[in-house]
This record gives sequence, structure tokens and C-alpha cells, in this order.
Amino acid sequence: MPRILRINTRTKEFKFEELGEYAGLGGRALTSRLVNKEVPADCHALSAENKLVFAGGVLAGTTVANSGRLSVGSKSPLTGGIKESNSGGLFAHKLPKLDLLAIVLEDKPEADAPFQTLFITKDGVEFKDASGIAGMSTYPAHEKLLEEYGDKLVAGMIGPGGELCGKASTIQFTDPYKRPARSAGRGGMGAVMGSKKIKAIVLDPAANEKSTPANADAFKAARKTWVDVLQGHPVTSQGLPGFGTAILVNIVNEAGALPTKNFRTGQFEAAADISGEKIAETIEARSGKTKEGCHAGCIIQCSQQYNDKDGEYLTSGFEYETVWAFGANCLIKDIDQIAQMDRICDEKGIDTIEMGNTIAIAMEGGIIPWGDGAAAIELLNKVGTGDHLGRIIANGVDFAGGAFGVDRLPTVKGQSLPAYDPRAVKGVGVTYATTPMGGDHTAGYAVCQNVLKVGGEIDGHKKEGNVEVSKNLQIATAAIDSLGLCLFVAFAVLDDANGVQAMCDTVAAHTGLKFTADEFLAMGVNCLKDELEFNKRAGFTEKDDQLPRFFTTEALPPHNVAWDFSAEEMQGAKVD
Amino acid sequence: MPRILRINTRTKEFKFEELGEYAGLGGRALTSRLVNKEVPADCHALSAENKLVFAGGVLAGTTVANSGRLSVGSKSPLTGGIKESNSGGLFAHKLPKLDLLAIVLEDKPEADAPFQTLFITKDGVEFKDASGIAGMSTYPAHEKLLEEYGDKLVAGMIGPGGELCGKASTIQFTDPYKRPARSAGRGGMGAVMGSKKIKAIVLDPAANEKSTPANADAFKAARKTWVDVLQGHPVTSQGLPGFGTAILVNIVNEAGALPTKNFRTGQFEAAADISGEKIAETIEARSGKTKEGCHAGCIIQCSQQYNDKDGEYLTSGFEYETVWAFGANCLIKDIDQIAQMDRICDEKGIDTIEMGNTIAIAMEGGIIPWGDGAAAIELLNKVGTGDHLGRIIANGVDFAGGAFGVDRLPTVKGQSLPAYDPRAVKGVGVTYATTPMGGDHTAGYAVCQNVLKVGGEIDGHKKEGNVEVSKNLQIATAAIDSLGLCLFVAFAVLDDANGVQAMCDTVAAHTGLKFTADEFLAMGVNCLKDELEFNKRAGFTEKDDQLPRFFTTEALPPHNVAWDFSAEEMQGAKVD
Repeated sequence: MPRILRINTRTKEFKFEELGEYAGLGGRALTSRLVNKEVPADCHALSAENKLVFAGGVLAGTTVANSGRLSVGSKSPLTGGIKESNSGGLFAHKLPKLDLLAIVLEDKPEADAPFQTLFITKDGVEFKDASGIAGMSTYPAHEKLLEEYGDKLVAGMIGPGGELCGKASTIQFTDPYKRPARSAGRGGMGAVMGSKKIKAIVLDPAANEKSTPANADAFKAARKTWVDVLQGHPVTSQGLPGFGTAILVNIVNEAGALPTKNFRTGQFEAAADISGEKIAETIEARSGKTKEGCHAGCIIQCSQQYNDKDGEYLTSGFEYETVWAFGANCLIKDIDQIAQMDRICDEKGIDTIEMGNTIAIAMEGGIIPWGDGAAAIELLNKVGTGDHLGRIIANGVDFAGGAFGVDRLPTVKGQSLPAYDPRAVKGVGVTYATTPMGGDHTAGYAVCQNVLKVGGEIDGHKKEGNVEVSKNLQIATAAIDSLGLCLFVAFAVLDDANGVQAMCDTVAAHTGLKFTADEFLAMGVNCLKDELEFNKRAGFTEKDDQLPRFFTTEALPPHNVAWDFSAEEMQGAKVD
Repeated sequence: MPRILRINTRTKEFKFEELGEYAGLGGRALTSRLVNKEVPADCHALSAENKLVFAGGVLAGTTVANSGRLSVGSKSPLTGGIKESNSGGLFAHKLPKLDLLAIVLEDKPEADAPFQTLFITKDGVEFKDASGIAGMSTYPAHEKLLEEYGDKLVAGMIGPGGELCGKASTIQFTDPYKRPARSAGRGGMGAVMGSKKIKAIVLDPAANEKSTPANADAFKAARKTWVDVLQGHPVTSQGLPGFGTAILVNIVNEAGALPTKNFRTGQFEAAADISGEKIAETIEARSGKTKEGCHAGCIIQCSQQYNDKDGEYLTSGFEYETVWAFGANCLIKDIDQIAQMDRICDEKGIDTIEMGNTIAIAMEGGIIPWGDGAAAIELLNKVGTGDHLGRIIANGVDFAGGAFGVDRLPTVKGQSLPAYDPRAVKGVGVTYATTPMGGDHTAGYAVCQNVLKVGGEIDGHKKEGNVEVSKNLQIATAAIDSLGLCLFVAFAVLDDANGVQAMCDTVAAHTGLKFTADEFLAMGVNCLKDELEFNKRAGFTEKDDQLPRFFTTEALPPHNVAWDFSAEEMQGAKVD
């Protein structure tokens, strides 16, 4: 029976608990329920009253394809609201091997307490002095842990960004290639971990409890059908594996929706230089790899190994949003510089989306010139050094706006917007405005319907249909995140008549409980209700469900479309 | 007929307007009405859509005692809500001499536009290149303006804090002694002026329009009675003139309500070292002055000239709140260091209350040691230098908390709390929680009833009566601020049965319009309604009408009282 492990970071006590009221939940549904029930909504996110929850999905530990995503939940230092930050890596599938559904970090020690590494076994928790890795970037720190715990290391750790409690700091997780390259990127989860003075969490490599499906035959059949669904869709079987998510650069640029120079226009003249095609070509020329999975059991393989000019490993998990953030949004054309920034962000433990936007704000504020990749790299490198500019950068867009006197801040609920201009992709604009997460594309990815023509076709320039599609996607996404599935399964599920059934069948066969499309949707709705309830208690109102004014007052070239939804209209995208 | 002068800081156009719908208003009632009507509540405070309003009160330009206070209004970069920041100095009384009731700065130029000085005459506005004083501290910049415009200079200006748009930046005004020592201190009004690229505003020294009361005989009589009221109360005739506001140090410390070490206890062991008595003694020993007024016509004379050890002028307007903020709250015992910090804040154009609290946060975050005055001075001196730490400091408490990873942040609506612990002075706690201004003692100074026993006696440790007294004081204060009177007249008005009548008689005689206690209260109520309406549109809810959680969870020594009001209970302190 999976358990919840609660760890008091001040007293160093721990306890294993039965699931109790949390039984049946997983992933985001679990983290959001627990945070909503147990964290005072009005507490400071860095205070002892906040909690940090790590949970695999309902399918964690199974052999279901693409079911190894991790949810990290807490009150967000960035948004002040609830947060589920989703990551790949090996952590989620490993938890059930320790008979764990979730780990909860509670309380916090004094601010000057030394950082600790938590070594977690099936039977207990060891607090180990982390002075050997405190202050280090994640790659070298991860190397040290590999030396200590061996090649089967599964860890989550913060970088210098989290150590200094930067609101844009991440938690980095071990990927299948022994690198800390997967991020719970958004919302400053690293700062919460840093405030609790935990540098790293290591899951006992030796732990190996078996996950046995309740209905083995049905599970085997369902698992296979599910693989067929994923392999039957061109996006999940060809587009993503060949080019990674950066295949979107040219597509979104063509659609006039690639935010350029801090959301001034929708097309970047140098888009081709930073495109997925260019990246794939570069990777091949340098003997890198174009197809890697972020977790065991991934059959989509959208990740990659991007090597530098000397053919040495530089980065992976090099996503479209990262390429956009440092590229088009900052007018930086050099893909190697952008790849370097991706690596620096992983090393420092800071979110690439928030950082790309933050660098653009530094350019707005005249701190560095537009398009200057070398200067941008220098800025990112300041995080975790004695230079206080690094503290400004590590705190994200709104913070940098305050520091540099900039008022053009593309944020919703304090979190900066990703790589789709909401004026030209209104469905995702609705998601930005209304998801409890703050500006976030993954929470309801209407880019499918607005741009990719997956799961239907809805004009991204017009209002019609976009509130509804965002709402439906937000529900489905919350459920997918709760099952622990990779969001990209949605491409196939949306277009394949058998997709939802196949997905639900794996859950039912694994748990032995009824799980149909109805239970799937209810799981999503209930998760969103938890999140909305928390945010309401934290003081959010419908006034917060709106984009910054400049999206309304400035039309976006080349299609000259503006944001024209009112905050009232946005309420239709929220579950009741 | 007084007019409103509107100046477009981008196009450099200006126009003089009739009062129109703003007739009858003055001071805070005018600034808050105009901001509420004309500024989009959801705009960014540093955007072109925000406006910055300078208005004298209804009695500005008259000889009524203590009627020369200035209101500066805008959307606040610090709170995100409406702001009226109140200042002494010569500006308010000078405006009517140019036939002006108010000046409104609108729009803004590009961020890299050079700073300008506005020279304002009765007939127009001249934009003058400010490159000779841009980047300078206020005292030397003011000296330059004195050289250019002569001894009758009346100016308002920003320091380096405002130039870099720090959320805690002030606007400094010429005092009667040719110093830029009076501040519109709270809420970051300097940042709004900085975003509009205006370094200084100079009012034509030659302008000399006469203010003629509508009813000269009645005015003469009312004016005299009013002087008698002020001179008849021990606080306004003896306490304040002798020792300045710092007379409160020992009183509030004795009451166990002097916030010490970032609001951890209510008594400071070294209170005597920073007391009003000590300051007065030091001033006398160094041939300074204990009685100065902040504007012409002041008969309370709570200001002073504080000299350094060599007998040279160091600072003035050296208030209790400043002494507390750098003293007890940071555990700094050296009154000369505190005085130096007061001067630095005036030079840099940053708010002393926000800065004292910010220094305490830097101490919490381990940036400098507790009680280290020299290190605190060094931090303040970084504002406006190339050091990015200065940008962090200039943005106040919540910002520094973000930069330094500190969660113990004594702020309401983003503005830090002043020198009275709300757990032991609950009436002022209610004001902190509910005034549209954010954490602010001046908005409803229930210290009178809770500690000083002026205007009645209400136990500051208990809940009873404190919501009501705060509400009544908030209304009276808004009216006093609208008339342009110094808030300290309230001591006399509250205790003298003739006080309100005498005050109202001066207004009626000056304007020729009916003005009784009813009109006085209506002026306050309507002003608050404007402010609450703006804040509501800006997204504030009753969740924002609450103190940070640690005031509820931690009892304050020595009386071990905690904050026990709910946000719902707070609603009773707001006008309907």
C-alpha cells in the first residue's frame, strides 16, 4: 500500500502515513488537494506554514507508456497562489518503489541553518549534511551525488537559485541519462525547498517494491492499445521525436504568434536560425541525439542531446518555450548561445521561461542591449554569485520590472507568459488569464485548436469558441497531470476516437476501480476546484483573471489583433 | 479663479483648465477624485496612463494656521492602489500664487528620454534640460536650483531613488529654510515622477497672486480663534514644539508598543538613547534648533535643525517614525547614525519608514548584522549608484524580502508598517489593515486614544471600540488632508469642544460657502469612497484588509498581546 511520507525539516522528524482522505488521488490532484487542505492560503510562501509536496501520478510505477511525470505542489512564491509544477525525470516512477505515493516537506529551520540532503529509504529518512554540495550548480552537485550513491541515483535538487529563494527557481530532477536536466520549472518551487534548507532529496537506489496491476490481463491489453494510440498520431510519432518541441518555432512564427521583442510583434526575422529544423540539423552535425525520453517508459522521445561546437554535451530538454524565450523574445539569433542559456538555467536552477522574459525586461530597462546573447549569458551567470543583480534576475519578470523601472510586464498572477502571443492565439490567452497557475500554456494548450488544427479548429484571432475550448482543455489537463501522464499524449487523445478509452482502461486495469471518461473529467474538475478555492482564499478575484493592459491597447503585427476579452468573460473558462 | 494645469510629459504640451467637476475640492479629496476618475485602475503605476497630481488643500494660499500641507496623488507603484502622499514645504501655499489649485503630470516619454525640469509660471510651462542635476542627490541639486532661480525658490524634486523608479521613492519639497527636506514620503510617488522623466518642478518665484477670503471679517475672526485652539492644547503648544514627534519614543516604548527588531518585541532597551529628550538635548548642545515649521504659517513647529558633532547642519524633519525605523526596529542605538540615515534618505529621495523596515529585512536576510548602523548607512548609500543592491533597497520591504528570501514582512497592501505595533495599539492596527493607503499610521491615528489619551481613551490591547475609532479618525483625517491642514491639528480639535467649529469657520469664511461639521465629515467620507472605489477596481478585496499572519500567531512582549481581528471584522472600519 503506497504511503505519504511527511518530513519536518525543522525537527528532522518524519512519519509514514496511510493515504486516508487522499486515497485515489495522484499527481496534481493530490498535490493541489493537500496544499488546499493543509496550507493556510494567506501564509507567506517561504514561511514554515507552507508545504512542498512531491507526488507521482495515479499511474506512477506502472509500465504504462509516458506515465512517469512528477507533480510538485506548494503555495507559489511567484504567484502567491497554488502551484503544481510538472517535471519529467526518474523521480515519479521511483516513489512507488519505496511504497510512496508522495513526499511532503513541512515546517522550516532557522534561515542560517545549514543545507541538508534527505536520503529516503522505504523505512525512513536520513538528514545528511549537504555542505559538500551547497552553493554548487546542479550538474557538478549531481555528479557528487552520483559518486556517493552510484549510477542508479534518483534525485531532486535545487541550484543556487533555489538556495537564495529566487521566485523563479526550479527543482531539477535526475533524467534517464544521469543528468539533472529535468525541471519542475515554474512558480518558484525551488525557493520553497530552499526556504526549508533542503539542497537535495535522494531516493534509495536499492528500493525496488513491485507495482502489480489489479487486473493483469486487462492491464496488458490496455497498455498495448495505449501504445498504439500514441504511435498512431503524426505529432507524437513523427513531429516531436524528430525535432523536439522546437518544431513549433517556424509554425508559430508563420502563424504570426511568436512573441518577439517582449511581445511587440508576432514574427521574428531570424526564426529560421532558431527553429527545430536548425536545431535538429545542428545536433546531427555534432553527433548529438534527436530522440530521448525524459523518463523511463516514454515512447514520444521529444528530448535530445544538444552538443556544443566541439561535440561535447551542452544541454537537453531544450524546449520550444526556452528557444523562444531567449531567442525571439530577446532578439537573440545564435542558437548556441540560447542552448548555453538553457544549460545555465538548469545549472542555476532557474526557470527558462521566466528567465527569457526577465532578460527581455533587463533589455527594456537598458541594463543590456537587445539581442546581445553574450550579455544575457553574463546576466544569468550572476545568479548565485555575490552580485546582487543575480538576486534580481532569479526573482523573475515582475521583480526585474520593479528593479529596472519597466512597466511592460507580460505576466498574469505574477508569472510570465510563454511562447504564444495571446492576441493571436486567443484560446491559450484564455488559459493564461484563467488557470489558477498564472501565465501558463501547459494548463490548457489551445495552441492545438488555434494553430495546429489538432482536436478541432478554432480561429485564434476571434473570440468565438475560445473560452469553451480553454475550459475543456484545462479540465483534461488537470486530469492528465493527475494520472502522471505526459501532456503530449493529448495530441493523440484529442484526435483519436479510441484515445480517451484506451487511457482510461489502463487506469482501471491498474487500480481495479471503475475509471471511464466520466471519472477522468471529474478528476480534472475536482482538481481545478481545489486550486480555485485556494486562490480565492489567498485573495485572488476575477480582476486577476486578465492579461496586462498592453495586450488590449496594442494590436499585434502582422495580423493586428488585440486582446478583447473582459475579465468577466473569462469567468466562463473556470469550473464552477 | 484657481485652475488645474495639465502637463503632457511626452508631447510637452500643457493646458490650464477650469475646475469644472473638481470645484470645491482640494488636497487629498481632489487628488483621489482625479486619480479615481482619470487613471485606469488596472494600469501599471509606471505606465503612461498613470497621472501624478500635486494639490494644495482648500485652505492653501490662506493665512490660516497650519494650512500649507500638500497632497501628491497617483496610483502607487508600491501598493498598486491609490495613494495620497502628504508633505510639508512651500509648494502648497505657492500654487494659488500662480492661480493654481493643482498640477497634473500626464503621459510619459520614452524610457531613455533625458530628465527635464519644469518651470511653471502663471502663464505656461517651460521644459528645461535637467542634465545639470539629473543623477544628483536632492541637496546639491536643490543648491543648483537656488543658484538659478534665487532664494525664493519653491521646488519639488526627485532624488536618485525616483530616477530609478524605486517603489519606495519620495518627492522632496523646498522647506522654509531653503532645503529640500520635506517629503511626500510614502507609496513611491517619486517613481511615478521618475517614470515621466521629470527631475524637478519649479514654481515661478515671482508669481504672487493674492488670495482674498470671501468674507474678510469672518475670516479674520475665525483665523484667530483657530490659533487659540492650537495654542490651547499641550501637545500642539508644548510637546511637539519642544521635542518634535520623537517625544513619542519613550511614551510608546513605555507602553510596550515600540516595534523592536522587525516587530519582535514592544520595547527597546536603548530607547532612551534615541528618545526625543535625547535628541532635544543633542540639538541644544550643538546649537541647532528645536522649533521649526515645515511650512509658512505653521505655529506648531515640530521640526528642528539637527546638527552633527561639528555643529554643522545634518538634517531636519527628523520624525519619530524615522528614529524608530532605523533605531528600535534595526537595533541601532546611535542617534547620530540615525540622523545621518534620515539625511541620506532625503538626499536619495527614499522614504524613511520604508527604508528602516527594509534595512531590518536586510538584517533578517543576513546581508548586514543587526544593530550595525555603519553597515546600514552603507546600504542606503548604494541607492542610485551602479550597485544593483541599491535598486533592491530603493524598492522597499516586500521587494527586499523577495531578494533576500525573507518571509517576515510587516506590510499591508505592500506598504510597510510604521512605528506602532498593531498588536498593542489595535486602533492603529485597524487603520493599517483598512486604510486604502496600505500600512499607514497617519490615515487614522488611533495612537491618540490607545496611548496618548487624547480624544478619549480606548484600550489598545482589546478589540472593543477600536474599529469604530479608526473609522472615525480615517474620515476626519481624509477631510483634514483635503483642507490642507497639518494632521497634528487633530490633537487640539479632538480635545477642544470648539475645535471643529473653529476649523470649519475658517473654511466657510475663506470660500464663502456653508461649511459645518457635516460638510467636513462628508468631505472625508467622499474622499475615502473615491479611494476605496479605485482600489476595488484595482483588484483589492477584503482579504487585503488584514495584517500579515505573524501578528496573529506571535504574541508581542512584554504584554503578550496578539492581533485577533478577522478581515471580516475589519470591514466595519471602512465607509460604505
